[in-house]
Amino acid sequence: GSNQCSLESVVDKKVMEILNNLEINSSPKREMSCTSVTNSGKLSTCPAGTVVTGCACGYGCGSWDVQSGNTCHCQCSGMDWTTARCCRLT
Amino acid sequence: GSNQCSLESVVDKKVMEILNNLEINSSPKREMSCTSVTNSGKLSTCPAGTVVTGCACGYGCGSWDVQSGNTCHCQCSGMDWTTARCCRLT
Amino acid sequence: GSNQCSLESVVDKKVMEILNNLEINSSPKREMSCTSVTNSGKLSTCPAGTVVTGCACGYGCGSWDVQSGNTCHCQCSGMDWTTARCCRLT
Repeated sequence: GSNQCSLESVVDKKVMEILNNLEINSSPKREMSCTSVTNSGKLSTCPAGTVVTGCACGYGCGSWDVQSGNTCHCQCSGMDWTTARCCRLT
Repeated sequence: GSNQCSLESVVDKKVMEILNNLEINSSPKREMSCTSVTNSGKLSTCPAGTVVTGCACGYGCGSWDVQSGNTCHCQCSGMDWTTARCCRLT
Repeated sequence: GSNQCSLESVVDKKVMEILNNLEINSSPKREMSCTSVTNSGKLSTCPAGTVVTGCACGYGCGSWDVQSGNTCHCQCSGMDWTTARCCRLT
């Protein structure tokens, strides 16, 4: 009857209000996004809010480690450039 | 009383309906998934919907960059294979 | 009137109960987190619940592949160390 309809519309409206406030609607659409940060020398740091997923080095060097959580460090001697691959959730 | 029970069951049902339609239930279970794409030559491209998190190269080469957003480019001369590490949210 | 208020408060409470049970509230805050796992030799494995996004190798080697889904394999001969970069959603 009309009471049932009224109840459902109140519930519908209230649920959507709460969900919108929680910004839940957008959460299923989150994706990964990555960018490269290149710096001269043996160090390159990812910007705040991103994480290092890998590093590349000059002179063909493939020996690297991540320092301080978000900085690529290329280990070979005489490194002329270092790239950090930096990713985040959009 | 029974009116209260009826109200709660209507609310329960309606909320679950809305959440299911929004595909929210599955969102807390999203995880990262990665795969490798290897190609002959100096280029390898991640498929649509994935992002490059790192690259590997033939002949021990560790110098690479990411071109056009989703293509690994191994920079050493004479590259015989290139692998892109490609990740996405499930 | 008071019936309307009562209805809204029941709906509010019920929706929050359901959302809390689904652990949806925390989902918009999920982020990526990565750590490095270094091992002697040519293999290094990411812990359960994480994925390999890239690998680093000793002796400047940049040739690697991912075996069994979560193990970095450095391909150059005489590899003394292998690092796996391991990421997950928090």
